[in-house]
Amino acid sequence: MTHITDKAENIVAPATVPGSGAVGIIRLSGPDVITIADSILTLSSHTRGKRPTLKSTESYKMRFARISDIDEVLAVPFRAPNSYTGENCVEIYCHASSYIENKIQQMLIESAKALFKNSTISSPLRIAEAGEFTKRAFLNGKMDLAQAEAVADLIASETEASHSIAMNQMRGGFSQELRDLRDSLLNLCALMELELDFSEEDVEFADRRKLSSILSSTYLKIKDLADSFSLGNAIKNGIPVAIVGAVNTGKSTLLNLILGEERAIVSPIQGTTRDTIEDTVNIGGTLFRFIDTAGIRNTTQTIEIMGIERTWQKLRESSVVILMLDSTREDSFSPSIKTIAEKTDKKRQRLIILANKLDKTKTKKEDIEESIKSICKKLKLSDVTILSLSLKKDRETAKKEIGDTLKKLGKGFLSNLQGKTYVTNLRHYQALKDAMASIERVFQGIDSNLPADLLAQDLREATDDLGGIIGEISSQDILSHIFSHFCIGK
Amino acid sequence: MTHITDKAENIVAPATVPGSGAVGIIRLSGPDVITIADSILTLSSHTRGKRPTLKSTESYKMRFARISDIDEVLAVPFRAPNSYTGENCVEIYCHASSYIENKIQQMLIESAKALFKNSTISSPLRIAEAGEFTKRAFLNGKMDLAQAEAVADLIASETEASHSIAMNQMRGGFSQELRDLRDSLLNLCALMELELDFSEEDVEFADRRKLSSILSSTYLKIKDLADSFSLGNAIKNGIPVAIVGAVNTGKSTLLNLILGEERAIVSPIQGTTRDTIEDTVNIGGTLFRFIDTAGIRNTTQTIEIMGIERTWQKLRESSVVILMLDSTREDSFSPSIKTIAEKTDKKRQRLIILANKLDKTKTKKEDIEESIKSICKKLKLSDVTILSLSLKKDRETAKKEIGDTLKKLGKGFLSNLQGKTYVTNLRHYQALKDAMASIERVFQGIDSNLPADLLAQDLREATDDLGGIIGEISSQDILSHIFSHFCIGK
Repeated sequence: MTHITDKAENIVAPATVPGSGAVGIIRLSGPDVITIADSILTLSSHTRGKRPTLKSTESYKMRFARISDIDEVLAVPFRAPNSYTGENCVEIYCHASSYIENKIQQMLIESAKALFKNSTISSPLRIAEAGEFTKRAFLNGKMDLAQAEAVADLIASETEASHSIAMNQMRGGFSQELRDLRDSLLNLCALMELELDFSEEDVEFADRRKLSSILSSTYLKIKDLADSFSLGNAIKNGIPVAIVGAVNTGKSTLLNLILGEERAIVSPIQGTTRDTIEDTVNIGGTLFRFIDTAGIRNTTQTIEIMGIERTWQKLRESSVVILMLDSTREDSFSPSIKTIAEKTDKKRQRLIILANKLDKTKTKKEDIEESIKSICKKLKLSDVTILSLSLKKDRETAKKEIGDTLKKLGKGFLSNLQGKTYVTNLRHYQALKDAMASIERVFQGIDSNLPADLLAQDLREATDDLGGIIGEISSQDILSHIFSHFCIGK
Repeated sequence: MTHITDKAENIVAPATVPGSGAVGIIRLSGPDVITIADSILTLSSHTRGKRPTLKSTESYKMRFARISDIDEVLAVPFRAPNSYTGENCVEIYCHASSYIENKIQQMLIESAKALFKNSTISSPLRIAEAGEFTKRAFLNGKMDLAQAEAVADLIASETEASHSIAMNQMRGGFSQELRDLRDSLLNLCALMELELDFSEEDVEFADRRKLSSILSSTYLKIKDLADSFSLGNAIKNGIPVAIVGAVNTGKSTLLNLILGEERAIVSPIQGTTRDTIEDTVNIGGTLFRFIDTAGIRNTTQTIEIMGIERTWQKLRESSVVILMLDSTREDSFSPSIKTIAEKTDKKRQRLIILANKLDKTKTKKEDIEESIKSICKKLKLSDVTILSLSLKKDRETAKKEIGDTLKKLGKGFLSNLQGKTYVTNLRHYQALKDAMASIERVFQGIDSNLPADLLAQDLREATDDLGGIIGEISSQDILSHIFSHFCIGK
């Protein structure tokens, strides 16, 4: 391992969300934090004799204490290595008020300054950086990098699905798969380097065809993981749904219908482009992210001429496409469906076709659905959900039918979730793609009979890419970047 | 004591501020909470043999545990009566995410339902009401009512001064004073009732003059406490400052100067009237509340004719009055200062006179200040702070001088804070006023030679008023009202 260990500094930060409330937690980590905490705490004693201290308190035992005129608290010591960070830790449970929390931290820092000055402790106390506790847990080998990152995902999880993925990752499921893959690549490396050692004798130890086959199976497993990112990311940030259709087919009405009633659990998240805000809704435990296709709405007359690259890109990014049709314009059905069929990936994307304004046409519901069905059949679109109704007249029915359809799709997406690993982190995805590229170079090298040392170099790169995910290989820069996205006190 | 004890139900609530963060706390209280918590926790064991449980864990000892697929947590049992509520308690320290916190509470409630169904526990688990944990602490005799109320004040304290008062109250300083006063009234009651018992024999045990003198001293102590409310309330909600003056003297400029730079620590609080928002600023550890005197600004031409009752009321409510003068209009000095002198209470209110627009007059700074000083002298206004400057030209100087003046005033208000008790709670103030009224009736009764039984009745009422503050006497309604202002989980 090439860990860069921080100098053992003492750090402090609140571990609870700021605000007024019942309990706030001040968390300390570092070699001297038990001594520092003792310097401001007065533990209450039930017996006469020596005043008890945290130092004389066993690990994990909470003690009632006073902090001069500031508060009455509970405090607990944890000793290295049996703590969250792997260092000595103290947690102080005070009343949740910013005045009290700030005051306690000030007192701790002041007191540590004095203790450091008279050499009682080896380093003063400072406010922790964001994620620094978890970073230390990683540096001290309490968890690997992917597990540490899962802690942040776990906290941010809003749905059962995203929580389940983060939990699996935090418990090390993903890390184990990566370790297995890395081990198999390392074995191949070893074989090649053996060949390298004897290269002057022109001996070819490894059967290159056999090597190629072992490598293939590893490559496919890595590809599986990389491919899981699209769904993993969708689960984490919401399954992307694009609502498309010509002007006046009722796209805004649909969007308001879905979001309007669910406003309480809707949170706006910043889209990938700066000028779009995307709304997410939790439907039946699955997060859906509705992609703003304002581009289509504002600038085109019919779906056939919606020639805006941005719209197509949004469409490609989505996992579910809802195509809105106007029931009074049956002539538009075929060209609209054809355009969408051409622009979507039948394997990856699910299509819902919704014929709106049923109340304004004399054609029967069954006939409209039959007509759409036959167009889909001609275009070889199977697995399409077809709905026909009036968003304005049948609000409740519409809401229920669309909700049920999305719920079913969501369940389908997530049905095989348990036990399977999903990549949800862009950094991991990039590393997997890098590893795949390196292995692809090895395949090419085998084909063109490249010498073993060049093959081994590419294989090494692939193992480093995988190692980077779990932090076996990592630079200070990457670590800083990762942990800066954590909250303070974690 | 006439406590109304709740049926021993099991309750649960998050004790931390909601949001995503490092640690969230789920708090349980009630007879069966250790059993309930054990039903969803899997404690980790370092040794072979029987799986450890919270039940087999000593009080105050934290244990690492898993909650199925939901989270990895620390959990700690507290046993009655050595807990916050005085009942059995459990605290679960999980990752702070609303998904996880809700899920854990759901699981606990579901599990308790099953345990209750098969009679393992005596009552199911329900979500706690706001303040219910502290209410139970009160009902179980862990603290009196004034102390319980101080918990809420402590959490809400934003400054050292308000924190210090709340802390003194939480530690029982205020309660002890009330108990002493109540005891002295109870002694007098006993004397009178003794007289009552022998009344048929026409014996007058208590020397009524002596009685009156003892009662006087108690009355004065109660009055002192009641009088402390005006400052106590000012400390808690901000020392009220009114900025008054004729149109165009620069009142808004001053307000913006004070609030503008301090916006970060300014919080708008709802004023006593519905249509005013008052801004508070923390200056040197003291909270000042700037009272909106829009009435003066918008509807009058000169301060002499600002005949609006609402403005006068605001002026009376303030502890500090800043009178703005226009240096270019020396003729306005005398009538303006005279009006304010008439409308303020020299003993209670502090006056700052600020002559603005010094840059626009040819009169020297010294001469302006001398002129104001002599007007004040004529009006017998001592202890007035006089400033003359230009708010527009000398922004920094103005800010510093006004800040320093307020800081000094704040220090003056708070200098005798330590050790002295201040009433900060309207309910307590009302009860003290009621007790005073009852005692005043006793004085009148003594003067008019009323029979002992009537005197004793009024004295009883006074003791009940004092007892109500600490909760010796309290109704379910009053309790519900008090604790409904607490946050959930406290």
